[in-house]
Amino acid sequence: MNINKLKIINDPVHGFIKIPHEILFDVIEHPYFQRLRRIGQTGLLNLIFPGATHTRFHHALGAMHLMFTALETLKQKGISISVEEEKAAMLAILMHDVGHGPFSHALESMLMDDWHHENLSLLLMNRLNDEFKGELTLALEMFQGKYHRKFFNQLISSQLDVDRLDYLKRDSFFTGVSEGNINAERIVSMMNVCEEGELVIDAKGIYSIENFLTARMFMYWQVYYHKTSALAEFLLVKILERAKFLVSQGVDLPATENLRYFLYRENNEATDEDIFRFTQLDDNDIIQAMKIWRNSDDFILSYFCKCVIERNLPKTIISSQPFDAKFINEKIKTTNDFFGINNGNLLVHEIKRKLLPYDSEKQPIYLLQKNGKKIRLDQSQDQLLSGLLITKTQRFILTFPREIS
Amino acid sequence: MNINKLKIINDPVHGFIKIPHEILFDVIEHPYFQRLRRIGQTGLLNLIFPGATHTRFHHALGAMHLMFTALETLKQKGISISVEEEKAAMLAILMHDVGHGPFSHALESMLMDDWHHENLSLLLMNRLNDEFKGELTLALEMFQGKYHRKFFNQLISSQLDVDRLDYLKRDSFFTGVSEGNINAERIVSMMNVCEEGELVIDAKGIYSIENFLTARMFMYWQVYYHKTSALAEFLLVKILERAKFLVSQGVDLPATENLRYFLYRENNEATDEDIFRFTQLDDNDIIQAMKIWRNSDDFILSYFCKCVIERNLPKTIISSQPFDAKFINEKIKTTNDFFGINNGNLLVHEIKRKLLPYDSEKQPIYLLQKNGKKIRLDQSQDQLLSGLLITKTQRFILTFPREIS
Amino acid sequence: MNINKLKIINDPVHGFIKIPHEILFDVIEHPYFQRLRRIGQTGLLNLIFPGATHTRFHHALGAMHLMFTALETLKQKGISISVEEEKAAMLAILMHDVGHGPFSHALESMLMDDWHHENLSLLLMNRLNDEFKGELTLALEMFQGKYHRKFFNQLISSQLDVDRLDYLKRDSFFTGVSEGNINAERIVSMMNVCEEGELVIDAKGIYSIENFLTARMFMYWQVYYHKTSALAEFLLVKILERAKFLVSQGVDLPATENLRYFLYRENNEATDEDIFRFTQLDDNDIIQAMKIWRNSDDFILSYFCKCVIERNLPKTIISSQPFDAKFINEKIKTTNDFFGINNGNLLVHEIKRKLLPYDSEKQPIYLLQKNGKKIRLDQSQDQLLSGLLITKTQRFILTFPREIS
Amino acid sequence: MNINKLKIINDPVHGFIKIPHEILFDVIEHPYFQRLRRIGQTGLLNLIFPGATHTRFHHALGAMHLMFTALETLKQKGISISVEEEKAAMLAILMHDVGHGPFSHALESMLMDDWHHENLSLLLMNRLNDEFKGELTLALEMFQGKYHRKFFNQLISSQLDVDRLDYLKRDSFFTGVSEGNINAERIVSMMNVCEEGELVIDAKGIYSIENFLTARMFMYWQVYYHKTSALAEFLLVKILERAKFLVSQGVDLPATENLRYFLYRENNEATDEDIFRFTQLDDNDIIQAMKIWRNSDDFILSYFCKCVIERNLPKTIISSQPFDAKFINEKIKTTNDFFGINNGNLLVHEIKRKLLPYDSEKQPIYLLQKNGKKIRLDQSQDQLLSGLLITKTQRFILTFPREIS
Repeated sequence: MNINKLKIINDPVHGFIKIPHEILFDVIEHPYFQRLRRIGQTGLLNLIFPGATHTRFHHALGAMHLMFTALETLKQKGISISVEEEKAAMLAILMHDVGHGPFSHALESMLMDDWHHENLSLLLMNRLNDEFKGELTLALEMFQGKYHRKFFNQLISSQLDVDRLDYLKRDSFFTGVSEGNINAERIVSMMNVCEEGELVIDAKGIYSIENFLTARMFMYWQVYYHKTSALAEFLLVKILERAKFLVSQGVDLPATENLRYFLYRENNEATDEDIFRFTQLDDNDIIQAMKIWRNSDDFILSYFCKCVIERNLPKTIISSQPFDAKFINEKIKTTNDFFGINNGNLLVHEIKRKLLPYDSEKQPIYLLQKNGKKIRLDQSQDQLLSGLLITKTQRFILTFPREIS
Repeated sequence: MNINKLKIINDPVHGFIKIPHEILFDVIEHPYFQRLRRIGQTGLLNLIFPGATHTRFHHALGAMHLMFTALETLKQKGISISVEEEKAAMLAILMHDVGHGPFSHALESMLMDDWHHENLSLLLMNRLNDEFKGELTLALEMFQGKYHRKFFNQLISSQLDVDRLDYLKRDSFFTGVSEGNINAERIVSMMNVCEEGELVIDAKGIYSIENFLTARMFMYWQVYYHKTSALAEFLLVKILERAKFLVSQGVDLPATENLRYFLYRENNEATDEDIFRFTQLDDNDIIQAMKIWRNSDDFILSYFCKCVIERNLPKTIISSQPFDAKFINEKIKTTNDFFGINNGNLLVHEIKRKLLPYDSEKQPIYLLQKNGKKIRLDQSQDQLLSGLLITKTQRFILTFPREIS
Repeated sequence: MNINKLKIINDPVHGFIKIPHEILFDVIEHPYFQRLRRIGQTGLLNLIFPGATHTRFHHALGAMHLMFTALETLKQKGISISVEEEKAAMLAILMHDVGHGPFSHALESMLMDDWHHENLSLLLMNRLNDEFKGELTLALEMFQGKYHRKFFNQLISSQLDVDRLDYLKRDSFFTGVSEGNINAERIVSMMNVCEEGELVIDAKGIYSIENFLTARMFMYWQVYYHKTSALAEFLLVKILERAKFLVSQGVDLPATENLRYFLYRENNEATDEDIFRFTQLDDNDIIQAMKIWRNSDDFILSYFCKCVIERNLPKTIISSQPFDAKFINEKIKTTNDFFGINNGNLLVHEIKRKLLPYDSEKQPIYLLQKNGKKIRLDQSQDQLLSGLLITKTQRFILTFPREIS
Repeated sequence: MNINKLKIINDPVHGFIKIPHEILFDVIEHPYFQRLRRIGQTGLLNLIFPGATHTRFHHALGAMHLMFTALETLKQKGISISVEEEKAAMLAILMHDVGHGPFSHALESMLMDDWHHENLSLLLMNRLNDEFKGELTLALEMFQGKYHRKFFNQLISSQLDVDRLDYLKRDSFFTGVSEGNINAERIVSMMNVCEEGELVIDAKGIYSIENFLTARMFMYWQVYYHKTSALAEFLLVKILERAKFLVSQGVDLPATENLRYFLYRENNEATDEDIFRFTQLDDNDIIQAMKIWRNSDDFILSYFCKCVIERNLPKTIISSQPFDAKFINEKIKTTNDFFGINNGNLLVHEIKRKLLPYDSEKQPIYLLQKNGKKIRLDQSQDQLLSGLLITKTQRFILTFPREIS
């Protein structure tokens, strides 16, 4: 009777997620993947958008679901895709974030200077491949762009990959920022493969793509690069930096064993123990540390940890121009005076954010015209906005203690 | 210009939440309330419904929002409500969960035998009232049912209170279990106050109420009392029980300082230190402990912690009848044999769940008829289901190690 | 490049609808099917629920979409389904309503006593089959239950067919009555085929089915059998009855040529002209007639038409018991007196509605248990409500002129 | 008990609509307003988006609802608004479309050259004011911009009025084009009134406004100005033009009495009979006429009517440049040759559509900055797109008979 079974996972974003192959389920059950349940998708953004408590675990499942529907659509349009290719593409996207550390990008460099999460993902995927006796080999090829049919890699990683489609839709859903609510299902239905084997979009889907690009832009400035989001990420980085510094000065900071390991670790090639320790870490280690470090003797560490845990956030001002050095220096001086410290410069900081809504040069998006030829999105005569989205916007955020404002 | 300001918080469930009075905002900013950001609304249910990562913090805001709309509706129907009453009702519901411990109900008794979260909420609300110089006095009266206009207390705590309306809608939203998606806005719009000053529902809203009652029933059996949810809650309780037991036997269990405090605490009147320690605890303390205790020398503690953290859950079977003692004993024996232990009884357990979908005796729901008289929901000639929902349903869930199944 | 094309139709209910086979598109383009654009799905219900202006055309497309997803699910569960079977099942459900007359069921008997819309659908489907050179033969077999694999017919017509799934979801969506918002996608995902080749539901989907049954019950009493809905349908029937009567008395009633044809038609076997005329009729013919007949010399006809067109509806009272004959007669007498007429009995009427939420005897719903055996929904030990939904509920609605109330 | 009553109308778009004042309900019940039930909001767009069958009636209610929430928001921000002002503003927006003819804008000029629907709305509003004994006087002042508090008129008619907010959201909802799904509730919550008494948007709402402007742009090009939508509107105009022409040539065209009246009417000042006849017309008159005129002896009229009724639409091609005159002439010649006619020029037509997404010159949108000063949206340093949306885009659509393509 087993053949009639079909695993289903509830997902408020996509309705529900079917798991059509056993190997997918096995990977999901692996502790490496289960760990993602304890890693938030959007870090501390829930300080600003309280609904944003969703996890990397759910995002990975959602991206896998979109991969499935994308491949179904392509098959319906006559593109032949084998069961092995389908499995591999779904595995690749399922595992794409498996190397994410706690609080995502913000802390990776802090914990392990010489790695970044894609390397880690690859490293962990290779370990999984060993455990699963090579069943993930094709998935790894696709992930790395080594497979000859390029559209598989483009579905995994490009300006229109299912990763972006899921996280934009998911983050919009959980934050409640409806401006980012892209129609992932529609975009997927417009996908096609051109003669060269590359991912393209049916020409009539052009407005859905342009809408996707603007929605993404709004999500960046309204959510990811929101001045308080930027601040929260900054605080996290500074807290870990300060902790590492204090440890290097001989201060004994309480933390979970695995987090302590990384505070003390010297940078060099990843060892087996590094890997093992890393896969034990999640958001809880960091939050717990911040809860404790609120009582640290170090003013800076204590100050920043209280800011986060009690959500008593420093002041921020935002500008489309860099702040004047003099203005910043005054803030530092006032801070030093106010608190009677001399490292107030650590509490005053200019954070910079920039965004290119659409990169028309590197891996541009192509439309498939009725004549069977592809054309660059921003060169189509039908485009309304794409040509306007090819310049970078930047914002500067100055943060300083609320006490001096 | 300050008067023109209106604080707004994003909420994917209700659109967004307005905070119309300053005192509400001040309470929200208090560390007691901010702590609720780190306490999940549905405990470990995210092991079964991965979207269910929402917090008590967000729920409390949502319930406050529904209170606001309920009062607006009543005012539009001609019920006079003063600004002070509005503030108080909103404050009361905002704070109703402030005494929640980590992982909610499941662990409260374990941590502090002689309290339960409503007592704690009251205790903490009293402390807040002191801090806010008596501004919460009326809210406390309403919360305790001491205020003479009964409908305020009924909006806070009854079979149709805004607490239930928010958590059912919110839990349905985040779990993705659409069967529980009640129309809170519609129910609120049907609220009224009868001559006796009690909360009633306009007669034409009867089906919305019956639908609410069935939706609630489905949420219980499909989500809260889902056999794996019941199991997860059971595991949590057993883990803390075991930890307390081991500590009482002199075992030194690593944990955060505040959690250790409660593992060692003897039951008696709550002291100031108890209160302080309690307000430092959140879900992270428990999760972190379980992560560490996976490596405990105690087989039972280690076994259960691994189950939760790696989501490698014990087996469950469900029945509408109690399980046969003989059958249970055999499972225990097999467990003992399999693991070579003699306390297998701790790994085999019958969990019981029962639900009364609608209590027609205690605080029944009343409809307001066109003639101005109220009538009990289940006695209305229009009722379709209410009369059928007044009997308890129960389920028995037997759990035992997956290894012996 | 044609093979890469995939027709897509926007649908706010299901997202969008893919048309995977050319023949489906050809049938959709046929004037028989296009006519359904001008036939409302829920007749005059938009007088009560102003959003309910959706059409049979859209419903048929939606049901076809659900058929597609149902068959996809079954294939994923290992049921083999050929392309020809898929096409046929989609065609059958696409055409299932093609015989619907204007304002649906209400007027069919009035226009053509001896037919009903399923006969007509079959008749028109046969004509289409001739036009399409036999391409619809298998669809016709499935529609009529003559195909040996029973589940195809059950998907077309049973207590859980895709027709119901679509119309409940669609009507709930457009009326805004959220109590009827079933999770069609989830129910479809729980479908399976048992050893006997019959449609069953995976046992774990039981609550979704029970929720579907209660949602359907609420939709009936809250929408379809709402007292004003019942009234509107009654008015329509009475208007056409009166028009036929007047015509039989030699009165010359203005109407479109095709409607006049049916007002004068004697009942007997359907002729070719009958069929042709019928396929020219739609809601507009009836509405236009009512607009004109408002000015009829006949008081009854004029009265009823004004009621509908100006939405100045007669009074209704509802009861779970039949109304007393004496009470009704008094209403008639008052009506006669008030208007100075002697056929007031035509303006006073008791309308009856009854519903069996779940028929456990005729074509019951079956669950597929883990052991591979099927069990009747209402006999499962897990059922919560099904056993309660097997008795009929009825309501009596008395209507009389608002002027006398 | 009457004071406790609150009329509620279901609306799938806004949840439901409360009618807080009796006079609003009375206007809604008036035949002038009930007629809007039979006038589609988006004309023939349901030929392309089958869900778009919603009516002007529902839109007017929706806009009234948004007006109510906008005024509630402003009151919460400290703007004083009297009950009389609230009533008047709600009445004004409720009636703003009461002068709409069948199939909206497209046919107005055809039916009554010298009027347009805003004049008609005003005319009909004045008549209603007479009937309601002057109760609508303030509403009329606001509608005409004569009331001294400008923001009322701006809420009724400006680049950010509640009319636009409702129709964009509603049309997006019913068409299923999610790209146009604006967050009306959020925009409303960001509304404010500046010192000068004008409508402004809180500065932090800037991205919601920019998203609104882009969503509107997408709705225009994807829905309202979709090449097939443009075609359908063109066909309607041409059909009525042709009918008027034929009538002027002495041809006797069957139609309902009221439509015939306008086909024969000479242009001049509106008479009382004109007004009366106009208020009897709705979409059904036009559709019925097209159904009949399919069989007209006039090739052009018959051809166009068949196109619409059987949805067998002419061919269209779209371009961002005007079509070459030579190319068009060739199409005309081929058409003449193919059908053996000499007025093929009536079947070949270049339709032009242009859009200015944001008009920064005429009634620009203003943001309210923290310093209490207003600033033009496109001059804010935070704007991302507004500066890019101030140039017109245009498209040219050439239509010609499918037979010659």
